[in-house]
This record gives sequence, structure tokens and C-alpha cells, in this order.
Amino acid sequence: MEVLNDSYYMSLALELAAKASGQTGINPVVGCVVVKDGRIIGVGTHLKRGTGHAEVHALQMAGDEAEGSTVYVTLEPCSHFGKTPPCCERIINAKAARVVVATTDPNPQVAGRGIARLREEGIEVEVGLLDEQSRNMNEKFNKYITTRLPFVTLKTASTLDGKIASHTGDSRWITGSAAREQVHTLRHQHEAIMVGIGTLLADNPQLTTRAAVPAIHPVRIIVDSQLRLPLDARVVTDGLSRTIVLTSGQADQARDEQLTQAGIEVIRCGDGPQVDLPEAMRKLGEMEIGSILLEGGGKLNGAMLEAGLIDKIMIYMATKIIGGFDSPGTFTFAGFEKMSQAIELDHVKVEMAGEDVCISGYPAYGNE
Amino acid sequence: MEVLNDSYYMSLALELAAKASGQTGINPVVGCVVVKDGRIIGVGTHLKRGTGHAEVHALQMAGDEAEGSTVYVTLEPCSHFGKTPPCCERIINAKAARVVVATTDPNPQVAGRGIARLREEGIEVEVGLLDEQSRNMNEKFNKYITTRLPFVTLKTASTLDGKIASHTGDSRWITGSAAREQVHTLRHQHEAIMVGIGTLLADNPQLTTRAAVPAIHPVRIIVDSQLRLPLDARVVTDGLSRTIVLTSGQADQARDEQLTQAGIEVIRCGDGPQVDLPEAMRKLGEMEIGSILLEGGGKLNGAMLEAGLIDKIMIYMATKIIGGFDSPGTFTFAGFEKMSQAIELDHVKVEMAGEDVCISGYPAYGNE
Repeated sequence: MEVLNDSYYMSLALELAAKASGQTGINPVVGCVVVKDGRIIGVGTHLKRGTGHAEVHALQMAGDEAEGSTVYVTLEPCSHFGKTPPCCERIINAKAARVVVATTDPNPQVAGRGIARLREEGIEVEVGLLDEQSRNMNEKFNKYITTRLPFVTLKTASTLDGKIASHTGDSRWITGSAAREQVHTLRHQHEAIMVGIGTLLADNPQLTTRAAVPAIHPVRIIVDSQLRLPLDARVVTDGLSRTIVLTSGQADQARDEQLTQAGIEVIRCGDGPQVDLPEAMRKLGEMEIGSILLEGGGKLNGAMLEAGLIDKIMIYMATKIIGGFDSPGTFTFAGFEKMSQAIELDHVKVEMAGEDVCISGYPAYGNE
Repeated sequence: MEVLNDSYYMSLALELAAKASGQTGINPVVGCVVVKDGRIIGVGTHLKRGTGHAEVHALQMAGDEAEGSTVYVTLEPCSHFGKTPPCCERIINAKAARVVVATTDPNPQVAGRGIARLREEGIEVEVGLLDEQSRNMNEKFNKYITTRLPFVTLKTASTLDGKIASHTGDSRWITGSAAREQVHTLRHQHEAIMVGIGTLLADNPQLTTRAAVPAIHPVRIIVDSQLRLPLDARVVTDGLSRTIVLTSGQADQARDEQLTQAGIEVIRCGDGPQVDLPEAMRKLGEMEIGSILLEGGGKLNGAMLEAGLIDKIMIYMATKIIGGFDSPGTFTFAGFEKMSQAIELDHVKVEMAGEDVCISGYPAYGNE
């Protein structure tokens, strides 16, 4: 059983933060619990970009009681005016006695200044409690806020022999329902989903989030160097979410205009015949797309990996063997000459997802 | 902590059996513990085919004290004269009061008769304690004794994208040292190891067991339809273990004689230009090879899987991606049209082997 101590409250704050994952846009998820005289007097979580931070909600609930309280917060309170006033001032005004912070804010606009500001006012501040959990749940934010590039999670489903379809192209279904439910949760938790035009033409997918409860649909990004996206594709017509087409500098202008008129955002990346993927990531970052779930076919997955643009890989592996001399694989790219050059995953996690195995980790580039 | 009860002693008997895995040939592994007046008075394990069974060793240690004892044995005592006299009679003569058996013997020559014989003499017999563990540790024996065909364990090492080498053929190393140590333990625990001639020509491997302690080398089986095995290959010249070459009916007779003179056992399987693998398994079974560790390349693995000859699959998966348009894969065969026809694994186990993931299970044929 859990024991009453600082972690007892901080783990509630972390849980509050985690459950809001996917609804804060490029903002971090943050949870807050306010405690006084042995009782929780306020809880809060950041719900949506541009609205109140976790501390504001929790202190609001606590009201005047907040004086002399301990504030548990999963991320360093902000010290700057962003879309909302600084949380530090809110804590100072509430006359909290002690603040326990899981981790400092990697945002260069905060980065320790929030903690310094609180201490300046004589508030006792402790930093580092359950910091790893807090940092991990904000891995997308941590990348975006320091690089302005989206955090890319590759999700793929394959057989044990590394295939994503049979030699006839059949892929229904590789994994079981538990893995597929997890994938829809991942869509909810990323701002955008990205596929290649090949996948789109083959399956005409909706690329929406279909969970057991209403959920947030990701922005749909199609990598389509020659603008082959049909005007009657579901992602063009269904109006369920924004659709962005990444195309090359050489794509047909008339087609570009047709798609634009149909409500599609067409973004040209580079001057060549192919989409310049690094430039695409920069442009998506500028558009405040902070996280992308890449559900490409082998070619797009391979190109993104080769370019070093994938931050996290999640492979749902069905424990079956399909064979086929040219069944498509998870990563189609030229590859490396030596096994020692292979791209390894760091911080590997292996979990069961129903009857399937989920292997995840973070590609370590620079080996090759 | 472990609690003193029947399982307390049976788990020692199981451990005694398990550790002898690999040294009993086509015989099962069996452990035995004799207990009386709250003390262990004898322990035994079957060490080698043709020598004393576990019960005989344990009762020998117990001596006259065995009268009135409880005998814990992992497999039903035999009731027939095989290479040694029946263990039932030994137990009866020792005047044991009670026998606890983990599982019945699938050997059609025993199959319940041992238990019946003991009960006939008024000995109390209980069956089924920790039976699953006992059956699992004798999965090789259980197949061989009922079919006279070897139990085939496929072991392969692949990357996350299902490759067993880079596009240049480099495969050193896919997995880490922990996985490689496990593979040598598997070699010790199988009577034979089998590879294709392609692997042999590429690597000139020894196919011996190299463990931290002296170990048993498996019989080496090379699948070589055209008798391309060089006379100076290590498996021909090193004399460390028997070498069997499986070849086709159409292979060159002069070459056959050269290899035979070099001490190689050449076995012709079928009349076609390729080795008839089902016939090969029957012939190896007749030669009392009860278990084979298949360490083939993709082609042999694929052919064995297509023929339904693989009983167990162990994939050591390195958490890295090598890519390559034609890097060799774990299973090279025509494959299935529909994902629903893929060969699934039953009783899947996922374990870490150092930094690698070991996924194992039993192919369920008959789906396709």
C-alpha cells in the first residue's frame, strides 16, 4: 500500500497530468495538488493551451485556505507572462509555505527562474521528487520547447519476420484488438498523424481516433510528393480534422490549388522532386505541431529513420510468421553495411499488449 | 519463502531433472527425492540413457531406510524392462509407503501402467503435482516417444526489422553476449544442431557448444542437396562431434564416397534434386536423434516452417534496425496470401536476454 509522504501527493499530481496527455497541444501536461493540515485542499491539472495552469486551478479550489499550504506540482511553475500570467506570482499571492516540484522546466524562458523567484519570496522549494516520471510524460514537450521541431513517435505493427503485410498486401489484422486500442490512444495523445501517400491510396483511411469514449482526432499529415491525393479521399471530404499535405517543390500547381480549395493545407518542402523531410519537420514545428504519430509504410518509415527524424519507436509485434519473398517490411531503406552500424534503441521497454508484444525505445543515431 | 509440503520436495526433484537436460539422449529427464520422518533420505536424477533411472539412484542412497518412505518423482515410474529393469519393482521392493508423481509417462509402453502396478501393491500414489513443469521440461521426449520424430527448436537472432544480416551479409553481432550464451546452452540441451549448406559455406562454423564450463557438443547436421560441403570444412576435420550430411537422391555418388571416407554420415532423403525434409526427419528419428536445434539461414528456416517441421521457435531479437532492400530475413519462403493465414505461435513467452528480447512459442499449423 501507498504510504503517506510527499510522494503520495506527488503521484496524484503526476496522474492528473498524465491523463490530460493529448489535450494540451504544444504545452506540457502538469498536475498540482495543494495540501494543508493533513488534507488535500485543492487539485488541478492543465487542461488546454491558453487556459489556466495546473497551479491556478488547484489554488482556486483551495481558496483562502491556501495560506501556509504545501503545493505539489509536477513541473516548475512558470515565471513569465505567456498566454496566462506567471504561476509563481499566483503561488506567492496565495501565501503557500512550501512548494515541491518534480522537475525543472526545460523551456528556456523558465529553466530555473520559477524556482528562484519562489525562493526569493521565502517559500521553501524542493526539486526532484519523481522527476523521471514527470520528464518522461513530457517527452514531446521537452523536445519541442527546446528545438521547435515536432517529437515523432513511429508506431508500426509487424509479424515476427518483420512484415507489415502479406505478399498480396493483406494486413487485416496483424495485431489483436488490445494493440489496436492502444494505437487509438496514441492518436489521441499526439497532435498529428502522418502517413505516406501509398498507405492513403491503398486503404483510404480516416486517420481519426476511434476509442471507447469520444477522443481528439489528430491533424492528418500526408506525405505526397506528386500530389496524388484524390479529392474524394476521406481525409479530404470528411471534415473530421485538419488535413495537411506535404509535397515537393516540383508538384503540380493546378493540383495544389484544387486541394487548397477543398480545404487542404498544402505545404511545399524543398525544391527537389521528393518531400524534403527535415524541412517538413521545421515547417510543421513553425505551425505549432509539437508531436506526430508516424504510421507510415516501410518507405516513409525508412526515409524518416534515415534522416534521423524519429524520436521514439513503438513496434507492436504479432507472434506470427507470414513469409513472402517480397512482403513489405517495417523499414524500407538502403540500410547499413555492418551490423555494428545498425540503429539501436535506447531505454527499451517490452510489454504485452493483449496477445502481442510491444517493443519500444528511442533510436540512438550517430552510431552509423 | 517456500513452505514445507509436497511441492517443496517435488520442486527439488524437478530441479534435479531440469539440470540434466541435454545429457539423457532420447530419454526423458527425471528427478527423484525420497523423504522419511521429515528428512530427505535420498536424491537422484537420470544421468544418461542406459544407466540407472532417477528412482534407482535415490533409493540406493536411501538404502534400508526407504521402507515406509515417500518417493517424489517427476515422471511416472516405468513398468517395463527397457535398457534397465522396471523402476516400479525397485520401489515395491524398497517398501515405499507413498509415491507422488508429477506426470504420467506419454511413452505408450508405460502410460499409466507404472501407477497401476504400484497401487496393485497397496502403495498410495498421487499424480499431477507440478505436472505442467514436468511435461514442459520433457517436451522433446514427449514428441519423440509418441511420433519417433525429432523435436525441432528453431533458434534465430534478428533485428527488429526481421533481418539476420546486413545487405552485405554482415551478422557479427546481432545480439549481445547474454543471448549468445543462451544459444550455447541450447546446443548442450539438444542432441543435434542443423544448418543449411549456405551458412556452412559462408561461415565455416564449428557448430559446437562453447559454454563457460565443459559441455556436450551436438551432432552436426548439414542440409546439403548437392554435396557442396568442402572436405576441409571444420565440421569435417575437427573430430569434435559426429557430422551428418542430409542430401538429395540425385547428389553425386563419388562425392558421397569422399565424404563418407572422411567420416561423414551421408543420408539421402527422397529422389528429387532437393533434400526431402519430412523424410529427413523420419530418418533422423530412426537414428535416435530425438531433438534438433535448427540454426538455419532464412531459406532452411522457411522450408522447415512450410513443411510444418518446426515444433518451437525462439527468436532473439536485438532492439536495432539494420535496413537494406535485400538484407536476408529470418524466414525466406513463399508465404501466405492473407494475414489471417499466418502461422501463429502458441504459449508465447517474452523474456529479456541481456539487452535483447527473446520471443518464444510453438507454431500452430493448420491455420493456413
